Amino acid sequence: MTARKRIGILTSGGDCAGLNAVIRAVVHRAVGTYGWQVLGIKEGTQGFLQRPVQYQTLDLSNVDGHMMRQGGTILGTTNRGDPFAYPMGDGTTKDRSDEIIGGYRELGLDALIGIGGDGSFAILHKLAEKGGLKMVGIPKTIDNDLGMTEVSVGFDTAVGVAVEALDRLQPTAASHQRVMVLEVMGRDAGHIALAAGIAGGADVILIPEVPYSIDSIANKIKQVRASGRNFALVVVSEAVKTAEGTGVKKLLQGGEKRYGGIGDYIGEKIADATGAETRVTVLGHVQRGSPPSARDRLVASAFGVHAVDLIAEGKFDRMVAWSNRGVIDVPITEAIAHYSCVELDSALVKTARGLGISLGD
Amino acid sequence: MTARKRIGILTSGGDCAGLNAVIRAVVHRAVGTYGWQVLGIKEGTQGFLQRPVQYQTLDLSNVDGHMMRQGGTILGTTNRGDPFAYPMGDGTTKDRSDEIIGGYRELGLDALIGIGGDGSFAILHKLAEKGGLKMVGIPKTIDNDLGMTEVSVGFDTAVGVAVEALDRLQPTAASHQRVMVLEVMGRDAGHIALAAGIAGGADVILIPEVPYSIDSIANKIKQVRASGRNFALVVVSEAVKTAEGTGVKKLLQGGEKRYGGIGDYIGEKIADATGAETRVTVLGHVQRGSPPSARDRLVASAFGVHAVDLIAEGKFDRMVAWSNRGVIDVPITEAIAHYSCVELDSALVKTARGLGISLGD
Amino acid sequence: MTARKRIGILTSGGDCAGLNAVIRAVVHRAVGTYGWQVLGIKEGTQGFLQRPVQYQTLDLSNVDGHMMRQGGTILGTTNRGDPFAYPMGDGTTKDRSDEIIGGYRELGLDALIGIGGDGSFAILHKLAEKGGLKMVGIPKTIDNDLGMTEVSVGFDTAVGVAVEALDRLQPTAASHQRVMVLEVMGRDAGHIALAAGIAGGADVILIPEVPYSIDSIANKIKQVRASGRNFALVVVSEAVKTAEGTGVKKLLQGGEKRYGGIGDYIGEKIADATGAETRVTVLGHVQRGSPPSARDRLVASAFGVHAVDLIAEGKFDRMVAWSNRGVIDVPITEAIAHYSCVELDSALVKTARGLGISLGD
Amino acid sequence: MTARKRIGILTSGGDCAGLNAVIRAVVHRAVGTYGWQVLGIKEGTQGFLQRPVQYQTLDLSNVDGHMMRQGGTILGTTNRGDPFAYPMGDGTTKDRSDEIIGGYRELGLDALIGIGGDGSFAILHKLAEKGGLKMVGIPKTIDNDLGMTEVSVGFDTAVGVAVEALDRLQPTAASHQRVMVLEVMGRDAGHIALAAGIAGGADVILIPEVPYSIDSIANKIKQVRASGRNFALVVVSEAVKTAEGTGVKKLLQGGEKRYGGIGDYIGEKIADATGAETRVTVLGHVQRGSPPSARDRLVASAFGVHAVDLIAEGKFDRMVAWSNRGVIDVPITEAIAHYSCVELDSALVKTARGLGISLGD
Repeated sequence: MTARKRIGILTSGGDCAGLNAVIRAVVHRAVGTYGWQVLGIKEGTQGFLQRPVQYQTLDLSNVDGHMMRQGGTILGTTNRGDPFAYPMGDGTTKDRSDEIIGGYRELGLDALIGIGGDGSFAILHKLAEKGGLKMVGIPKTIDNDLGMTEVSVGFDTAVGVAVEALDRLQPTAASHQRVMVLEVMGRDAGHIALAAGIAGGADVILIPEVPYSIDSIANKIKQVRASGRNFALVVVSEAVKTAEGTGVKKLLQGGEKRYGGIGDYIGEKIADATGAETRVTVLGHVQRGSPPSARDRLVASAFGVHAVDLIAEGKFDRMVAWSNRGVIDVPITEAIAHYSCVELDSALVKTARGLGISLGD
Repeated sequence: MTARKRIGILTSGGDCAGLNAVIRAVVHRAVGTYGWQVLGIKEGTQGFLQRPVQYQTLDLSNVDGHMMRQGGTILGTTNRGDPFAYPMGDGTTKDRSDEIIGGYRELGLDALIGIGGDGSFAILHKLAEKGGLKMVGIPKTIDNDLGMTEVSVGFDTAVGVAVEALDRLQPTAASHQRVMVLEVMGRDAGHIALAAGIAGGADVILIPEVPYSIDSIANKIKQVRASGRNFALVVVSEAVKTAEGTGVKKLLQGGEKRYGGIGDYIGEKIADATGAETRVTVLGHVQRGSPPSARDRLVASAFGVHAVDLIAEGKFDRMVAWSNRGVIDVPITEAIAHYSCVELDSALVKTARGLGISLGD
Repeated sequence: MTARKRIGILTSGGDCAGLNAVIRAVVHRAVGTYGWQVLGIKEGTQGFLQRPVQYQTLDLSNVDGHMMRQGGTILGTTNRGDPFAYPMGDGTTKDRSDEIIGGYRELGLDALIGIGGDGSFAILHKLAEKGGLKMVGIPKTIDNDLGMTEVSVGFDTAVGVAVEALDRLQPTAASHQRVMVLEVMGRDAGHIALAAGIAGGADVILIPEVPYSIDSIANKIKQVRASGRNFALVVVSEAVKTAEGTGVKKLLQGGEKRYGGIGDYIGEKIADATGAETRVTVLGHVQRGSPPSARDRLVASAFGVHAVDLIAEGKFDRMVAWSNRGVIDVPITEAIAHYSCVELDSALVKTARGLGISLGD
Repeated sequence: MTARKRIGILTSGGDCAGLNAVIRAVVHRAVGTYGWQVLGIKEGTQGFLQRPVQYQTLDLSNVDGHMMRQGGTILGTTNRGDPFAYPMGDGTTKDRSDEIIGGYRELGLDALIGIGGDGSFAILHKLAEKGGLKMVGIPKTIDNDLGMTEVSVGFDTAVGVAVEALDRLQPTAASHQRVMVLEVMGRDAGHIALAAGIAGGADVILIPEVPYSIDSIANKIKQVRASGRNFALVVVSEAVKTAEGTGVKKLLQGGEKRYGGIGDYIGEKIADATGAETRVTVLGHVQRGSPPSARDRLVASAFGVHAVDLIAEGKFDRMVAWSNRGVIDVPITEAIAHYSCVELDSALVKTARGLGISLGD
C-alpha cells in the first residue's frame, strides 16, 4: 500500500508516435490503480520555467478515447533549451536549473516521469542530482539509438512509415524504370534505414555506421539491371555524409546551397555513375507524426505502467527498458552512457547482406 | 454482334494509381464480353518503335487477383519521346512517327486504347490522323487538369496521399508549435493542393492560379496564433513560382542551388516573416505509386469498359470522360483543347475561402 | 452584411465518417466569417429534450487540429426517438415535439443545421412546420440512398473500408483456393456493395435491387474456376434477403437462429452448390467509424460552408446537395420524397456487367 | 564454399502475412548468395502428392518487386491433409507419407524448408525421420503460440489489423454510447486478443487462459460509465468458451444455432447484464490476408536467410527462432513440444492489469 502521491510527467525532445500512449498508461496506473494525482507539465522542462508552472491535471476522463491513437504529445515538447545553459535569445546562455527545481517544488511533486532520449535524460539526471528530484525515465526516440533497451517508443512507427513509402515508390519505379532514393530520418544511427530498407525491399541501404563508395552503389545497381530487373530502391539515412566526409546540410549552409539533404546528393551521384533515371524522396516529419503502430502502443503502455510501479517502490534515477519480451529497469546513468548505433555483426546487418543488399561498402 | 477484333492498349506519360485497374477493365470487357484479343504495348509508344514490337498478350488469367490493387502500370510507361520529334540522344530529333504506325500495323491492330494525359492524346491524335490508327483515349493524370472530364484516373489517390501526410504532420506540428509546409505535385494546376489542403485542414493553400504575397501568408499565420492555436499547416503546389516570378527548380539550376523546390522557398520566407519554427516536407513520388483508392478504381473500371464499347460501336478519336455520375465520351480534340486549371469561382475555391483558408492573396 | 446570429447544429441518425468535418466547416464559416455563435446540440434531438438543453458552444479553438480527421461525431448522435412518437420505454409512445421546439426557443436559436438522412430530415421538417424552426439539412449516410444529391457524407469512406477488406481477403482466398463472402452495410440500397465490389475486384455482387438465384451465383463461380482462377470474391449487401424473401436477421429472430446475417446464408448456399471452401466476413461497424476519406472531408467541408451561407441568405427548409462538382441546395421535402436506390441502368451497374461481374440474376 | 544444391520450400497450414517475404529471403540467399536452385512446392505437402510433383522454380526474377509486400503465399497452402492419415474423401484415411517422400526424391532435393506451425512441423519431422528428408522449419502463425521463439511470422500484422479495427470502432462507440465487442482470431491462445486489446485501448479482454464471469465484465463496464465515459471496448479471443464451458461454434452446430461465434454470445450477455447498446464485430480473415507489417517482413527476412544458412552448414531438423533481437535455431522437436499460450505473469498481462483492463476474472 502506497501513500497518495502527486507525480509529474513531461515529454522532452523530438516528438514521436506513442507518446500519448505512454501518458495514458501512466495516468491509468497512477490514478486508476494507486489513486495518485498526475500533473502533465507543458512543453518538456519549459513548463517548469514559467510561473505559475504550466501544467494540466491528467485523469482518466481526459486520456481515453482517441488520444492514445494519435501521434504527437498532448503535453507539447521541445528540443530547445538545456536549463543548465539556457539560450537567452541574445546569444548568451544562463543556468536556469534552479528555476526548474523550483517549479518541481512549487507543484509539490513526489516524483517526475520524463519521456525522452539520452539528451533529455542527461539533463533530468543532473537536475535530480542537484535538486533532489525523484525521476524515472521512459525511452522514446524514432532513432532507436538509446542503449540498454531493445527498443524505444516511436521506432516501430517510423520504420512502418518508411516501409510504406518504399511500397509506394516501388510500382512507380518499375513503371518508369527508375532508381528511387528514399532519405529517412536517423540523426546519428542507421536503425531506421536498415530496418526499413530490409522490410521495404531495398537494393542499397546507406547508414552512417558503414562507409560507402559511389562505385560500389553503382555496381549494385548495374548488377540489378543485368539480372533483368528494371528498377532499384535505395534507402539513405539522413546521418550519412558526403564522400568528402561532410554532412550535406552543413555543407549546403556553409557553401552555396541551402536546401536538400544527403538523399539528393546520393541520387545525383547514382544518376551520374549509372545513367539511370533517378528520383529522390525525403520523407521528413511524416515519420514522427503518424498514428502509433500497435507495437509502439504496446511498448509505451508497458513502459508507462512500469514507470509508475518504480515510483511506488521508491526506485528512482532509473530508466524503464524493453528486454526479452518484457519490461525491466536500469540505472539511467548506464542508459545515458551507452549509445546504440547499428552493430555490424547484428542480425539485421547479416540479414541485409544475406539478402544481397549492398551497404555501399 | 461484333466481329472478333485485336486491340492494343498502352499507358503513356507519368504513371499514377489506377492504371492497372483500367487495363484490367479493358481486358474483362474486350476478352470476357466480346471475345477479342488484347495486346498490351510496352512502355507507351516506345514498344511500337522496336522490332519486333514489344507487347504482351493480356487475358483474364493475368489481370485478376492483386494487379488492380497495385499502383503503377504493368505495361510500363514513359514521358520521354514525342515520336514526331524523337530525341536521338545526340541532341538532334527525328520524326519516327512512321515507325509507330508501322508497329501498329505489324500487330494487325483494329484499334488502340491510349491511357494518358493531354500530351499523350495530342501525339496519338496526330498518329491517328497521319496513319489511320483507330484510337480511343482514357484520361489519367494526378494533376486532374484534363478538360472535358470531371475527373481523371489517379487524382483521387494523389489527393488521399497528400491528406494523409497532413494528418501526420498536424500532431507533430502541434507538439512542437511549428508551421508545417507540405509541397504537393501538380505540374501546372493547383487541383491537388486545393483539394488536399481543404480536406487536410490547411490554413494556407498556394496554387499557381492565385498570385500570393508572403505578407498575406504571414498575416494568416499570425492570426492563427492570435486565436490561440499554436501550429499551422501550409500546402504549396509545386507549380507555384517564387515572388520573382520564376519556378524554383529553374532558378536553382540557373544559379548556385540545384536542389529543393518551392516548398523550401516558401518555408524559408514564412520563417523569416513570422519567426515561427518551420519545417518543409516535399511529398514527391509517393503520390503516384500508392495503391489506387476505391474511387480511382471505380472510375478506371468504368472508363475501361466504355472505351471498349466505343471500339465495338466503331467510334474513334474520342476520349471517355466522367460526367454527372456516369461515363460519356467526347472528341479527343476537344479534350486536348481544353486545359482545366482551378477556376476561381469553383465550389472548392469558395469552400476554401469559406473555411477561412488563405490562398495567399 | 448579416446581423449576428446564434445557430444550432446537431448530428442525427447512424454516425459515419465526415460528420466532424461538417461541424468544423460550419464553425469556421459561421464563427470565422460571419462572427456568429454556434451551439452544438448533444445526441441529435435528444439534447433538446433535456432541461437545460444539452449543448456545447463551438468555436474555432475546439474544432481545429485532430477533430476533422476523426470518425464519429463529437456531438454524439442517436437513431432512437422520433419526437412525434417518442418511445417512453414502457411500450407506449408520446408526442414530445413541443419539447424540442421549446428547447430550440430556450437557446434563442436563429436557425438549426441538421446533419442527417431522410428519416432525420422528415422529423426536422415536421418540427420546422409545426414550431417555426428555421432549418437547413446536410445529407450524410454511408448508404448513399438520399435523393437529390450525387453523394452524401460518409459514403466514400464506407466504400473505401469495404474495398480494403477485399484487398485483404483476396490473397488469403487465393492462397487457400477459397470463395470469400463479404457482407457490407446498406440498409435498403446496394450502393456500398456495388461500388466496393467493382473497386475490390468482386466476381459476384448481390444488391437488394437485383433478385438473385443461387444457381446463377454458383454458375459464375464455376466459370471463374474453369478459367483457371482458384478463388472468388463475393460481396453481399446486408439488405439482400434470403431466397424465401425474408431478411435473414428477422428470420433468425423468428426461428431458431439469432445470430448471423445474409452473408452467412449466402456463404452456406455457395458452399453447398459448388463444393468450394467458403469463408464469410461481416464487416460491420468499422465501415462507420473509420477516419474520413479525403473526398468525404471535401464534400463535408463544402456542405458545411454552403449550409451557413443559406442561413445568411435567409433560405430555410432546404438541403445542401452535391451536383456536378459543386454544391447546390434543394427543397428538403424533395430530398425526403426521392429515395435513391441503385438504378439498373446506371453507369456502375453497366460497369459491373461490363466487367463480367454477376449480379446474381 | 558449399556445393550447388537444390532445395525445396513450401508453406503449410493457415496462411498469414509475411509468407512471401520468407520465400523471397530464401531465394535471395540460396540463389543470390550460394547459387543454388530453389523449387517452390505448391499447396504445402499437397504438391508432393501429385505426379509429376507440382512446383515452380523460384529465382530472383520472380521474387522481387511487389511480391514481398503482399499477404498470402504465392505457393498456395492448405490446412487439410496429414499425409500419415490422409482423408480420402469417403470418410476413410490412408497413410500417404511414402508418396510425399517419393515426391521429395523425384525432385532430387537436398533439403526442404517448411514454413508452418506446430502441426506442420510435427508432420515434417515425422517425414524426415521416416524418409530421410533434410528439413528446416520457419515458424509462422498469427496466433503466436509456437514455443521456443519470441515471435512467429504473421503475428504482428494480425495484431495491427485488430488494433486498426478498434481505432475504427472507438469513434462510433463514443458517438452512439455503445459497447463494442470485437472478436479476434487465436485458435487456442489469447496472444492476439491481449496485444490488440492493450494497444487498441480495450476495457475488457477475454482470453482462453483466463476464466471469466459475465458479472465481472458487467462490473467493469458499469465502472467505466460511472467514471463518465459513455462507451466501452471489449476484445474477445475466438478461443474463449461460453460460460457453460463449450466453444460457441460447437454449441451452435450441436444445437439450434449454426452461425456466429463467441463474440455474439459475449455481446448478448453484456447487453443483458448492463442494458448497454452493444454491437459485435467478428474480424475474421482480414487478419490473415493483410499486407505484412514492417516487423513481420523483417522477421521473415531474417528467418529466411538463416534457414538457408542452416542448410549450407548441414544442420537439419531445426527451427529458426527469434530471440533477443536476433535469429537463433532450436531442435524442431523442442519447438513442437513447447506450446506457448499467454503466461499469466507475463509483461503484457501485467501491463493489461496495470492499465485497469479487466480480463473478466
